[in-house]
Amino acid sequence: MNDLQFDPARPLDLVAVGRLCIDLNANETGRPMEETMTFTKYVGGSPANIIIGTARLGMRTGFIGKLADDQMGRFIRSYLQKDGIDDSQVCVDHTGAVTGLAFTEIKSPQECSILMYRDNVADLLLSTDEISEDYIRQSKALLISGTALAQSPSREAVFLALEFARRHNVTVFFDLDYRPYTWKSAAETAVYYNLAAEKCDCIIGTREEFNMMENLYNVTDADDEATAARWFSQQAKLVVIKHGGSGSIAYTADGLNHRSGIFPAKVLKTFGAGDSYASAFIHSLMQGDSVSEAMRRGSASASIVISRHSCSDAMPTLEELEAFLQSNEEVVSGA
Amino acid sequence: MNDLQFDPARPLDLVAVGRLCIDLNANETGRPMEETMTFTKYVGGSPANIIIGTARLGMRTGFIGKLADDQMGRFIRSYLQKDGIDDSQVCVDHTGAVTGLAFTEIKSPQECSILMYRDNVADLLLSTDEISEDYIRQSKALLISGTALAQSPSREAVFLALEFARRHNVTVFFDLDYRPYTWKSAAETAVYYNLAAEKCDCIIGTREEFNMMENLYNVTDADDEATAARWFSQQAKLVVIKHGGSGSIAYTADGLNHRSGIFPAKVLKTFGAGDSYASAFIHSLMQGDSVSEAMRRGSASASIVISRHSCSDAMPTLEELEAFLQSNEEVVSGA
Amino acid sequence: MNDLQFDPARPLDLVAVGRLCIDLNANETGRPMEETMTFTKYVGGSPANIIIGTARLGMRTGFIGKLADDQMGRFIRSYLQKDGIDDSQVCVDHTGAVTGLAFTEIKSPQECSILMYRDNVADLLLSTDEISEDYIRQSKALLISGTALAQSPSREAVFLALEFARRHNVTVFFDLDYRPYTWKSAAETAVYYNLAAEKCDCIIGTREEFNMMENLYNVTDADDEATAARWFSQQAKLVVIKHGGSGSIAYTADGLNHRSGIFPAKVLKTFGAGDSYASAFIHSLMQGDSVSEAMRRGSASASIVISRHSCSDAMPTLEELEAFLQSNEEVVSGA
Amino acid sequence: MNDLQFDPARPLDLVAVGRLCIDLNANETGRPMEETMTFTKYVGGSPANIIIGTARLGMRTGFIGKLADDQMGRFIRSYLQKDGIDDSQVCVDHTGAVTGLAFTEIKSPQECSILMYRDNVADLLLSTDEISEDYIRQSKALLISGTALAQSPSREAVFLALEFARRHNVTVFFDLDYRPYTWKSAAETAVYYNLAAEKCDCIIGTREEFNMMENLYNVTDADDEATAARWFSQQAKLVVIKHGGSGSIAYTADGLNHRSGIFPAKVLKTFGAGDSYASAFIHSLMQGDSVSEAMRRGSASASIVISRHSCSDAMPTLEELEAFLQSNEEVVSGA
Repeated sequence: MNDLQFDPARPLDLVAVGRLCIDLNANETGRPMEETMTFTKYVGGSPANIIIGTARLGMRTGFIGKLADDQMGRFIRSYLQKDGIDDSQVCVDHTGAVTGLAFTEIKSPQECSILMYRDNVADLLLSTDEISEDYIRQSKALLISGTALAQSPSREAVFLALEFARRHNVTVFFDLDYRPYTWKSAAETAVYYNLAAEKCDCIIGTREEFNMMENLYNVTDADDEATAARWFSQQAKLVVIKHGGSGSIAYTADGLNHRSGIFPAKVLKTFGAGDSYASAFIHSLMQGDSVSEAMRRGSASASIVISRHSCSDAMPTLEELEAFLQSNEEVVSGA
Repeated sequence: MNDLQFDPARPLDLVAVGRLCIDLNANETGRPMEETMTFTKYVGGSPANIIIGTARLGMRTGFIGKLADDQMGRFIRSYLQKDGIDDSQVCVDHTGAVTGLAFTEIKSPQECSILMYRDNVADLLLSTDEISEDYIRQSKALLISGTALAQSPSREAVFLALEFARRHNVTVFFDLDYRPYTWKSAAETAVYYNLAAEKCDCIIGTREEFNMMENLYNVTDADDEATAARWFSQQAKLVVIKHGGSGSIAYTADGLNHRSGIFPAKVLKTFGAGDSYASAFIHSLMQGDSVSEAMRRGSASASIVISRHSCSDAMPTLEELEAFLQSNEEVVSGA
Repeated sequence: MNDLQFDPARPLDLVAVGRLCIDLNANETGRPMEETMTFTKYVGGSPANIIIGTARLGMRTGFIGKLADDQMGRFIRSYLQKDGIDDSQVCVDHTGAVTGLAFTEIKSPQECSILMYRDNVADLLLSTDEISEDYIRQSKALLISGTALAQSPSREAVFLALEFARRHNVTVFFDLDYRPYTWKSAAETAVYYNLAAEKCDCIIGTREEFNMMENLYNVTDADDEATAARWFSQQAKLVVIKHGGSGSIAYTADGLNHRSGIFPAKVLKTFGAGDSYASAFIHSLMQGDSVSEAMRRGSASASIVISRHSCSDAMPTLEELEAFLQSNEEVVSGA
Repeated sequence: MNDLQFDPARPLDLVAVGRLCIDLNANETGRPMEETMTFTKYVGGSPANIIIGTARLGMRTGFIGKLADDQMGRFIRSYLQKDGIDDSQVCVDHTGAVTGLAFTEIKSPQECSILMYRDNVADLLLSTDEISEDYIRQSKALLISGTALAQSPSREAVFLALEFARRHNVTVFFDLDYRPYTWKSAAETAVYYNLAAEKCDCIIGTREEFNMMENLYNVTDADDEATAARWFSQQAKLVVIKHGGSGSIAYTADGLNHRSGIFPAKVLKTFGAGDSYASAFIHSLMQGDSVSEAMRRGSASASIVISRHSCSDAMPTLEELEAFLQSNEEVVSGA
């Protein structure tokens, strides 16, 4: 029902590689962070959120990453274990690196911002030594996210994981997840995003993220169709371009496109929308659903998470997602 | 009543230079931080705590420091302002530095630890350009703390402040406050601690901190009296050496020493004991009290703060301190 | 006569990108450098040597690179100009970087070593801003060399140049030129060498260099044919693997291989053999010669250069090369 | 005959600490370096030159420093040994650091410039571990030079050497030798120059160097007498301020000053004038000569060296210096 291929013989469904960190979400919302006095701690980081989301939906998952040797790192590991995510490839830094932090400010559902701590973080110290060819080839699919490309040696570790994935026909999902603060320049960012994207089967990002990748190469007439076509000439079979409030468009190599709608929600904050979308979307594609159905389930999952306080902890189980889909109606804008 | 001299004509009593940061104290105590889910935010950093403590006791205070250009930095500034501390010399970083963090773990009153975030912090970016000779000479006294010596350019800024203080007869208090994580090596630490201590009138530190300073110079027969004598041959007139549970000894240049006692307290955590001691001790010395009386008031202030949840926010007012002294009895060990 | 295509309409034959530096060759040879008292200055750097060599053979050439703003940088520019190499894309650093140096020690023809100065060198500061798509598309061919991949921002500049070359059908030669001292780790080196090689038409390197690229990917049964095949599955049409004294083998995508011989020479030093080989080899291929003929001319050029004191300055003109070929006989080993 | 005290019981006369590097002097003079084709190699670095100069005059000398593990480093060591300088405290770097280089350009006697290579140099990696208290106390005098203060860990090593020198009454000479390229900022430079100068017995520098040290402290009315007085209030007993062509003035703590004259010379280049002056000046003071006589001998030594091609290799022996003094007349300007 979709063009992506997943080898049913593999013991793992999805392995994610990259950032594991901590969100510290303001308990007192509706005000600037200057006036926030207490924070609640959650596991965070885009690939961590997505793998937690897919584990909740019933997938057999694993993570390749690096944790700080501190209380924050140990909390993250035990959280992954509680959700049944294989952490055998989650190693521990011994250089004194810290756990990345994201303090969230929730002034209003429309005004959310993040204060990041990304200096000397353990997740970017993942190295090529810690990438096992044998592990990667046991999985149907690999998920990478752009932040892991931001610095050496994590950048090289991701490129090595991509090489192993390609060699063993592991389908690769690339969640662009571009966060400017860990990158030195727009040009550096674009170079490595493009080199990675060349090797991926399914690329998911916002229009702005694709523009960032194309600007360096003097692409001026960027439209979604041209963007998708560019990647179809490489390895991609599915390209999803998100347009914020106006929904997403998925392009397939056969030239068709698919628009997703929205499930109206009581929005607490917008954080986590993309990660929850991605987890239900990937789960659905790997079940063999059509692209349209996968997008519908992605939107439903996003609706659930943005009405809750966290990203990771808020990820719905399969039962919750099904219940939501039965009792809520998708609204397709511009249809 | 003590050997330190303070010029009564100066408009400011005490100016502190150095670290301004954030404490995130575990709300759920009596457990490892892995199991702590929420944290409360306070202003932190040794010189910040001491200046807040002395301001609460009624002194005219100012601060020379550097804040991150973020919500944490703005919270710190407004907190200083609320306590009436002059923040005209508190400048703002524009390089993207962050606010230093200290997550506290309170397993039991005896087992407290701190998880520090000290990479790329704004306070260590204070530079010589931001040290005003004119401001320093308006103060009776200057307080420096060792963490500000840990890196350039803050290190040079402190040495320049010391030069201006000496030139204008501003009495200098040096709170050693040695925190290994921001230093590259023990030798580097000892070199700059010694160079700074040569220019100070009153040096306050633990036995371990003085040992660290002496080890580099092959001093092997370190006892308190020899340590104090070493600094009396430089500028010092008062040297306070702390011995943890067994109290502190203050040496004066006349060869006398003074032992402090302890006020029994219902201890919640040990953080903040040193800073609250220092603030009441300095306040008392600057009122013209004897060294013994200053030590008694320091101990009382420490007793109050270790029974409360924070360091800075817990600092007593003069009324609270007097009330405590009237209703509690000092216990002098080994007397 | 060979599989590489060159668009005859382009105004430039070959553009090189990368390292421009200085060789300081021992004047007193046959002794360790400790006993060498004087040195002679030459332009150096693999792509610089190759472009000088091809210019001498009559090609219309250009260079994309970055020079230090000092006397060494200005000497290099004037040397390029004297050989008629277009230097419009050779920019100047303004951050205080220096010109890379290579002091050569010539103990005997068999024992040559190099003492490199590669810290803070201008050539590795070439940035993506300094790569002109318009310039690259005016050339029939582009030459890259591995040292330019060693650090940011030069690494990203090379990847951008490769993208522009591919987009405009500029044939890319990749001279592996692996120099361990500018790289952080073998894994980092292999990742970027592989990513670059995927985009090249002709790859020239030693067996050891190809091994370095394959080790990271757990390739254990490396033989020349498998190595070549690996690159034919990407863009490559010609892969040259050098085996030191036993000569080189060139593989073409049609499955054939070609062995080069050697012209006996009165060897002064071995430096420059590879660069002089590459310049005559590339020149010959671009004239439409067969791979075998190109290899023969490469070997002849190498023979000339290793009998002279420098690399760059020693590059023969077309007349010198032709004269050498007429009066010398190639010896094909193992034939 | 002068105020400096030297303990006659010590086995060594003078130990220098700091920079050991290589000068590469243009062989073809009277032209810009762009047109210089060959260079001659010499030992260089201010303290190296001075210690070689004093060894040639017959003093028992030693050096505390760090060499690169390469041919340049080994050349320097054997050169020191040939002059009888004790190299037992000259250690070898094992981190891959290089030997500092200074290429000299001699356009005319009045227009000389230097192109420095000071990135990742071994001499600045001297660490506190490599400073022996026992060695320093065997010497009558210690020579430090400002460049060794430019970076950690060399900076801390020098401060430790100063502490040991003070403790054991080793007389300290401080040759300011300020070279902007190894320092991050003027303020950083001034802070450490001032901290070091406080501990020295004899300070030798140009008016510009003393200004650099005073600017940070808002000293605006700098004249030589005030400058000297400032250091007499610390440890200094002799302050020499150089005014380029108009000669030097030496101040002594008794309030007197002494002006040096010049010996007319056939100037080849101005490099090395200061170092040759310092070596003969220090030698003379340590022989017990008057300050005036020491200055006369310093000027004579400078005259000899600026007429020769190198700095270190050109240093006169005692016989050469005496012969020069007998056959040449000092000219005292403005007398």
